[in-house]
Amino acid sequence: MYCEANFGAIDGKTANGLVRHSELYEILSVIDSKKAGLDAGVVLGEPPNGIPICRDLADALARAGTTPDYFIFGMAPATGMLSRRDREVLLEAIDLGMNIVNGLHEFLSDDPEFVAASAARNVKILDVRKPSAKESLRTFSGRIAEVACLRIAVLGTDCSVGKRTTATVLTRALNDCGLKAVMIGTGQTGLIQGARYGVALDAVPSQFCAGELEAAIIEAFEAEKPDVIIVEGQGALSHPAYPTSALILRGACPDGVVLQHAPARVHRADFEHMPMPDPADEIHLIETFSDTKVIGLTINHENMSDADVTAAIARHQDELGIPVTDPLTRPPRILIEMVLSAFGGTMR
Amino acid sequence: MYCEANFGAIDGKTANGLVRHSELYEILSVIDSKKAGLDAGVVLGEPPNGIPICRDLADALARAGTTPDYFIFGMAPATGMLSRRDREVLLEAIDLGMNIVNGLHEFLSDDPEFVAASAARNVKILDVRKPSAKESLRTFSGRIAEVACLRIAVLGTDCSVGKRTTATVLTRALNDCGLKAVMIGTGQTGLIQGARYGVALDAVPSQFCAGELEAAIIEAFEAEKPDVIIVEGQGALSHPAYPTSALILRGACPDGVVLQHAPARVHRADFEHMPMPDPADEIHLIETFSDTKVIGLTINHENMSDADVTAAIARHQDELGIPVTDPLTRPPRILIEMVLSAFGGTMR
Repeated sequence: MYCEANFGAIDGKTANGLVRHSELYEILSVIDSKKAGLDAGVVLGEPPNGIPICRDLADALARAGTTPDYFIFGMAPATGMLSRRDREVLLEAIDLGMNIVNGLHEFLSDDPEFVAASAARNVKILDVRKPSAKESLRTFSGRIAEVACLRIAVLGTDCSVGKRTTATVLTRALNDCGLKAVMIGTGQTGLIQGARYGVALDAVPSQFCAGELEAAIIEAFEAEKPDVIIVEGQGALSHPAYPTSALILRGACPDGVVLQHAPARVHRADFEHMPMPDPADEIHLIETFSDTKVIGLTINHENMSDADVTAAIARHQDELGIPVTDPLTRPPRILIEMVLSAFGGTMR
Repeated sequence: MYCEANFGAIDGKTANGLVRHSELYEILSVIDSKKAGLDAGVVLGEPPNGIPICRDLADALARAGTTPDYFIFGMAPATGMLSRRDREVLLEAIDLGMNIVNGLHEFLSDDPEFVAASAARNVKILDVRKPSAKESLRTFSGRIAEVACLRIAVLGTDCSVGKRTTATVLTRALNDCGLKAVMIGTGQTGLIQGARYGVALDAVPSQFCAGELEAAIIEAFEAEKPDVIIVEGQGALSHPAYPTSALILRGACPDGVVLQHAPARVHRADFEHMPMPDPADEIHLIETFSDTKVIGLTINHENMSDADVTAAIARHQDELGIPVTDPLTRPPRILIEMVLSAFGGTMR
């Protein structure tokens, strides 16, 4: 997985997410010359996970002792575009016979140089963000009303704040306690990680976002007959630059929302002049914008000690009057109880 | 202008708008076999405007006495896609040497058959909705804060409710009274009509909508140095299927909003099971979602008598406590006063 100069940072969030959780791919190594030699788990502030960070592609191949099947482009820069150096590394990987997984807005399967190179080496290019062909894009129909299972969206107060991670942990916790839960991915990382249903909404023309998400939810419901559908949010409803959650609320019509927040974050990721919103304001906005209720707050503990987390949980619980937890450090049963206390009556 | 079976109807809104107002093109005739022989103004419930409705392309050419420079595809079906019959007519127009103006999501300049046909006849294809190349799409930067003129967005309670018409009338009224106003188009019709600044937002990948709109506003401000920028809304913030106004509010950060409403409309256009929102609820939603204020309500008088309009103006004014007018039948000075009473102090 290629994440040069960005592993562990916000623009490396695809790589950071895959190192934590990957259903489709076994991650052999991360390429980031700036952190070469370190363990990928340790860089993320977690226990060692045995995934080495390598200097470059040659180093990664030497470590693997073979040529891996896939080269994953694990960065998500705000521009969504490749640098010249990125192109060279991708072409080198193709030349070695590796299939390419690409989560950028720039679609390699539309680029003549990559098309020619991949054809010559008979490798596949997976452009995870590429929307369906325009003639098959769907507008919102209202058929979401026929989806007769609980729908919960995991929204957040910022970008890169842990919505996908919480959605993943929540889905797993529900399944572990005997409720069938299916996650709908709405971003490139969730889809690369292995969400079987979903669409990379930020690459879909805005007119079709609500409809494409509605269609993905209907597809998941009809195929899996789950008890609960968990929808991954994007950006923040209040975010000046990334308000895609507006389209997610319209397309998913969730019964409830779990709000992900980072209490120690001062300003929005990548926007130093934008202060973080207060969770109470975000909750008011969500509940005004959509006919839904926020059933709990989940905490991203970045830059917080365990004592800080405990204090933040108590404070937010007191201020907001809803359950609060840190999904990564507190027991999963608190997440389950969050859902059951809000909807237990209607689910049985 | 081709609008087969749809002129005067909601899916013919591009044609309906161009018949009312066109800065770039002189409209010679409308093609709609279902209304052939009628006057286009009369079909829209307005005074005759001398634009004939023709049976087919041959009829339109005979009436014009020449081959017009442009063939405008004047329909905006929800799917945004061409039927087989539409393709045949377009190819016939190209074969006659006419340039094509297309506002659909389907881009003719990407279609090999149209590319070959237009090259053979040396005619241009203008795909109005086609976004910039992906590598030049812009994300929201916050530079909108440097745009030192008043920004007003014209939002609505539904699709096809008259937002663009009101934005056009308001822009003209402000200019007529000596305030320099520039309109930013956000849909295909406004751009075909001649809005010199703007972008067809519904075709832009959602991640770039706020940024592309912000960039268009900055471009208009720097080039024109206006007193006021009027931003055309899309859909409705509350609309389950078309909430693009969420992205418009984020990208434009308007100082004020004018809300367009059709008091006699019972359900949302094209969605018979969705009741129209109450204007008071839409205003509350807009003012919660964005740091702005709704400065007035403008009325679409469809299916209303003049007495109905008078009664609706009085009732809404009383209920909402803001100025209310019908921009098409009441004096333009009421629109001017709406803006001046809200912002007059800050503008001088």
